[in-house]
Amino acid sequence: MESLGFTAINYISCNEDYRDRFEELFKDRAGLIDNNKGFRNMHVLRPAKPEDDYLIVSYWDSEEDFTAWTQSKSFIDGHKRGFADIKKAKEEGKEPPMKSSFKTYQIITN
Amino acid sequence: MESLGFTAINYISCNEDYRDRFEELFKDRAGLIDNNKGFRNMHVLRPAKPEDDYLIVSYWDSEEDFTAWTQSKSFIDGHKRGFADIKKAKEEGKEPPMKSSFKTYQIITN
Repeated sequence: MESLGFTAINYISCNEDYRDRFEELFKDRAGLIDNNKGFRNMHVLRPAKPEDDYLIVSYWDSEEDFTAWTQSKSFIDGHKRGFADIKKAKEEGKEPPMKSSFKTYQIITN
Repeated sequence: MESLGFTAINYISCNEDYRDRFEELFKDRAGLIDNNKGFRNMHVLRPAKPEDDYLIVSYWDSEEDFTAWTQSKSFIDGHKRGFADIKKAKEEGKEPPMKSSFKTYQIITN
């Protein structure tokens, strides 16, 4: 079956005391992803059960478009604050405030 | 942070020999969900790694709209063929061809 588009989902396990900060990072997001070639739209999903992962879902025309974004300056710039939080925890010998697990998909039905 | 909408994701673990049939069920879907109040859109996502789950993602105006759909005749009708496959396997003493795990989310950023 042909694909109707490409989807990337980042599953984020967030420490309880980091959840507010995590949500703020996206509330304030600069929209750096939005102008990338092939980008369709994205959602950040808060789980009904606090123990479940947050999901960052992005839709793209193709895997190539998504990969090009991950290798772009806008990707680095867009993740700067989150990456800094993780680096800071590491330097302080603490557990990272969030861990991410990444999966990709093809859209087969709309 | 307020919600921008409601999302339901059904994570489907599909037996290897049932994957083609599973995809067919959606290719042929009658669109019974589409006219339900508060329904926005849906995607069926095929994982890049065969061992990962398929995702059935549906977007709704509110949790109430989603719940009303799950209690409607169109929900039963829309799942008729999948439910029949599971029932048949059970009657034959076989493992079910797919298992589903269900999670819900609030959209906090678009």
